[in-house]
Amino acid sequence: MGGDNAPDATLHGALEALKAWQGLFLHLVGDKALLEALMSRPGFGWTPELMERVNVVHAGSVVTFEDAPKVILKEKKDSSIRVAAQLVRDGQADGMVSMGHTGAAMMASTLVIGKLEGVERPGLASLMPNLTGSPTVFMEVGANIDSRPEHIACFGLMASVYAEKVLGIANPRVGILSVGEEDSKGTDVTIEAATLLRRMGLNFIGNAEGRDIWNGRFDVIACDGFVGNIVLKSAEGMAKLIKDGLRTALTSSLRAKIGALLVKPALQDFFKQLDYREYGGLPLLGIKGVSVIGHGSSDAHAVKNAIGAALRSTEHGINKRIQANLAKLTPKA
Amino acid sequence: MGGDNAPDATLHGALEALKAWQGLFLHLVGDKALLEALMSRPGFGWTPELMERVNVVHAGSVVTFEDAPKVILKEKKDSSIRVAAQLVRDGQADGMVSMGHTGAAMMASTLVIGKLEGVERPGLASLMPNLTGSPTVFMEVGANIDSRPEHIACFGLMASVYAEKVLGIANPRVGILSVGEEDSKGTDVTIEAATLLRRMGLNFIGNAEGRDIWNGRFDVIACDGFVGNIVLKSAEGMAKLIKDGLRTALTSSLRAKIGALLVKPALQDFFKQLDYREYGGLPLLGIKGVSVIGHGSSDAHAVKNAIGAALRSTEHGINKRIQANLAKLTPKA
Repeated sequence: MGGDNAPDATLHGALEALKAWQGLFLHLVGDKALLEALMSRPGFGWTPELMERVNVVHAGSVVTFEDAPKVILKEKKDSSIRVAAQLVRDGQADGMVSMGHTGAAMMASTLVIGKLEGVERPGLASLMPNLTGSPTVFMEVGANIDSRPEHIACFGLMASVYAEKVLGIANPRVGILSVGEEDSKGTDVTIEAATLLRRMGLNFIGNAEGRDIWNGRFDVIACDGFVGNIVLKSAEGMAKLIKDGLRTALTSSLRAKIGALLVKPALQDFFKQLDYREYGGLPLLGIKGVSVIGHGSSDAHAVKNAIGAALRSTEHGINKRIQANLAKLTPKA
Repeated sequence: MGGDNAPDATLHGALEALKAWQGLFLHLVGDKALLEALMSRPGFGWTPELMERVNVVHAGSVVTFEDAPKVILKEKKDSSIRVAAQLVRDGQADGMVSMGHTGAAMMASTLVIGKLEGVERPGLASLMPNLTGSPTVFMEVGANIDSRPEHIACFGLMASVYAEKVLGIANPRVGILSVGEEDSKGTDVTIEAATLLRRMGLNFIGNAEGRDIWNGRFDVIACDGFVGNIVLKSAEGMAKLIKDGLRTALTSSLRAKIGALLVKPALQDFFKQLDYREYGGLPLLGIKGVSVIGHGSSDAHAVKNAIGAALRSTEHGINKRIQANLAKLTPKA
């Protein structure tokens, strides 16, 4: 029910996902009467065959973007995001996908589903595009602030497992975000986090700088959620600036308009490489299930891909792998 | 002597600056024989009239990008950056401009010229472009890490004075970079810095998010140098990704190539708005003189604009204004 285009985009995305992945079973959580009415519209495509892999679960309220995340604790205990998290907690679902309030989705996932044993701070990872064809897993971006070194090291570990298992990157190159390449550059926290990561048997290759988020030199970049959230939102803001500016430029004269028609397919191909919708959503790592949080403005294509990301996380059992590696976080004497 | 294209781009930029601003007198600091040989090349344009406003000052060495900043303290005491800083310290120059090693330029400015009284941490500001026509002054970006609240408040003050006096923005809207708009969002350090800024009589309008760096909602955004440096380098990396990708896309087919010819002027106009070279360099604020640090890859146009930025800082006496406001940083009981 959450997100700018819900529940319509969500339903369309769910339909596409069910068509794409035969092994998928979906609980659709929200206003049951509304959802069933929408789904039964003529021509929508919810065939009886597809409906066999769907269960509509009622939820009495929706967390809006104006709500504080903690609204799920008391005022909106029957919100769709909390009901979805309860399905995961109770083993009725392996994972959940939301396009709604990020903070509420993080809180519901962490508190209702619960943290993985040994993980103090679950966190949100983002897939940053580049031109190498394989994104960089950038974690943490959910405003998980004041991280201690062991939290940042754990973000690096969880993101590395995600890169390997879900994205299929062999032996992911892991770095820590800092202000210089040299090991001595950074805060006490990042330098200590680097020490922890070096001990863990991951392919830790050192400090990453801001530019390395975009050049493919690293498969995983770990950081505190304060800087990560700001970098992600800065990138979104800059992308919007460039998109708006290009649109204005390409309609600024007759000559530009004609040229724009000719370059349009090439530009679309390029921008598709950078489009967050291709990845669908941000995985919340470190909980006892799977939770993928999409952008509020997700369309059906993004919803479908977010469901795909959740499905792959489930199939590859990343949580078992994270736990197997967590022991290495304990410093050797 | 510093920078990727020195001393050629520097000399060309200096020439353009002398032509543009009649009141300007330049010391050119570097290998005297080399500089004079280059300047006397036929057709370069160093007329006797222009040469009357130039003084070539010898410096025996150059800090390279491979050097550690502290090389200026012992090994390269006669480096061009240090000699330039000495000219400012000794009152022979009002300000200095460098396209070389940022860390060395910051160190030379801070240690040789000295800090403004009351400023514990000088810092580097960056001008971030948007589509409103007036950039956002974003400070601190020189990797001035582990800032305390009073440092961040001081960055906000100094950047605000720069925005008002040098950029001509009346009553600049000042914000603190954080992970949410609400006053409660952020670290203990950013929340306390906001409290300090509120007391100072600036036009403090609250927390800025990452996206606000690019949308013109703030004229000034203050932050610690760890996140600021990473955001700046991330933006440079993303700009490179988009530029490279657009170049590939616009040459990917005959159709795209023809269209590219037609859209080229409009695209150039747009990208010029985002081009750091239009601002020329980053002002180092909080020292007893003026210091502008340009991008290592600066061309003559960027050098000229960096000199212009230094000139305007000198003419508007921003240091007096910064000092007059510094008293307000002291918390009222």
